[in-house]
Amino acid sequence: MNFKEELAARTAQVETVIKKYLPEEKGYQKTVVEAMNYSILAGGKRLRPMLMQETFRLFGGSGEVVEPFMAALEMVHTYSLVHDDLPCMDNDEYRRGKKTTHVVYGEGMAVLAGDGLLNYAFETAVKAFGTADGMQAPDRVARALGVFAGKAGIYGMIGGQTADIEAEDREMKGCPVTEDGLLFIHEHKTAALIQSAMMTGAILAGADGEAVRQMEKCAYNIGIAFQIQDDILDVTGSLEVLGKAVGSDAKNHKTTYVTLKGMEQAKRDVERLSGEAVSILASFSLRSLRNEFLEELVLQLVGREK
Amino acid sequence: MNFKEELAARTAQVETVIKKYLPEEKGYQKTVVEAMNYSILAGGKRLRPMLMQETFRLFGGSGEVVEPFMAALEMVHTYSLVHDDLPCMDNDEYRRGKKTTHVVYGEGMAVLAGDGLLNYAFETAVKAFGTADGMQAPDRVARALGVFAGKAGIYGMIGGQTADIEAEDREMKGCPVTEDGLLFIHEHKTAALIQSAMMTGAILAGADGEAVRQMEKCAYNIGIAFQIQDDILDVTGSLEVLGKAVGSDAKNHKTTYVTLKGMEQAKRDVERLSGEAVSILASFSLRSLRNEFLEELVLQLVGREK
Repeated sequence: MNFKEELAARTAQVETVIKKYLPEEKGYQKTVVEAMNYSILAGGKRLRPMLMQETFRLFGGSGEVVEPFMAALEMVHTYSLVHDDLPCMDNDEYRRGKKTTHVVYGEGMAVLAGDGLLNYAFETAVKAFGTADGMQAPDRVARALGVFAGKAGIYGMIGGQTADIEAEDREMKGCPVTEDGLLFIHEHKTAALIQSAMMTGAILAGADGEAVRQMEKCAYNIGIAFQIQDDILDVTGSLEVLGKAVGSDAKNHKTTYVTLKGMEQAKRDVERLSGEAVSILASFSLRSLRNEFLEELVLQLVGREK
Repeated sequence: MNFKEELAARTAQVETVIKKYLPEEKGYQKTVVEAMNYSILAGGKRLRPMLMQETFRLFGGSGEVVEPFMAALEMVHTYSLVHDDLPCMDNDEYRRGKKTTHVVYGEGMAVLAGDGLLNYAFETAVKAFGTADGMQAPDRVARALGVFAGKAGIYGMIGGQTADIEAEDREMKGCPVTEDGLLFIHEHKTAALIQSAMMTGAILAGADGEAVRQMEKCAYNIGIAFQIQDDILDVTGSLEVLGKAVGSDAKNHKTTYVTLKGMEQAKRDVERLSGEAVSILASFSLRSLRNEFLEELVLQLVGREK
């Protein structure tokens, strides 16, 4: 199989895991469950659970203890989209070509569906204690839960969303975001859930503290490189390749990594950050099985044309 | 000390525990943390963490393992109020005489503050693994986490909120809620977090499965009795005693326990449910220390004049 086929096959495996942990649509709470499942099944590349599973494999993990966490991470990612799309946030009517949750189910139900997904993420992750391998290593599951919770919250994703909203408000008042501020947003809004994926994958496989810190660094690089690449493509990309409008940042006079550092520096930084990320992964191949699929996945992610 | 003094003293203790676990208002995420702390410090009787602590004591629990869960439960309760007050939900501008979170911080930030509180509840509860007594009994903390998560979600509080919203929609279309539907709402919207309090308190103290099930039943009775009493007071209470408008249910043609079962039956059911709840608590006094404060607290709760 080439990479593309392998990616499709592994995405399908991840989909199966996610579906296995979705709640049943029945009872008096049926509507909120429908709205939750509608949101999570509306598509997506499932990159976060895939990165978690592949990091778990890199460190020699096996068994199903990682599965509840994979599903839980996709639930966290999905709830953040549902709430982000609300009229009082980004007010988006479509996502991935489908109507957003509040358009289909109403705003109140979308708030509850987001809350339901976030809460169900923890209900699901806690199930890892009950898996056969979770029973043997409750300490790993407990540590993974701590990282998983932390990277989703105010010191992770929610912190990034907060800083992003405030930076936009200030930009409208003519006060552009600083490089430090922009990196904070990218680190927390984007990299944090990738860190959650790779760190929990490593912890659940039994990686030591130093290895987990290396995964945190690796995932930071991936997240930041991904976001810089996003800024680059908004300038150099084409509508056909991206499937979305380009030049929107310039039109909105938005401060991006490209406006702050220049196009050439931005491209060099993507190269450097992604190169370091792959080096970190390769360094662990000496001690464990090499995961070439994971290395290729990272390169595709940050070097992506779309 | 009489009960009132004892209640004030214990409420102050619970306040201290909650404050100990609140996040610091600093960094790029400062605003969302301010909004979270504003919401949780806006007052409240702290009944849920108090019931947790007292049940923990009833079963001979000691040490600080219960503390993160106490703070976490108040965070869950508070996030539900923040999201409930949003314009797309109940659209309330005031709560306990203070402006609601979205009025002070804007709707977008209120959504994030609610999300932040829910997520931080789990970040906080997970800290119980790291307390001295949590280290000794990780299995108890893991089981408590499972119950804590479940009672807050779609099979607990969020399920009740969903059913409540839908029942209101149907009532407006002339289709009144059934007794079964009303009990589902009360059980999930109100009793679930009381169950969370008493069950996690018991689990963390080392109570066995049967005792935990008895606490679930006891808390169910307390929650339902409390809600029926609420319906009764809306008919018989006075503005001066309640501090809020009475007769609002009748004015809204709302189906309540009183309209379904009649006033006399409703009063008898409050008696029966609260009597059973106290009997359950007293039955455990034979095996452990009697917690007379907890028994009195339950009676005050359901027999309350306001």
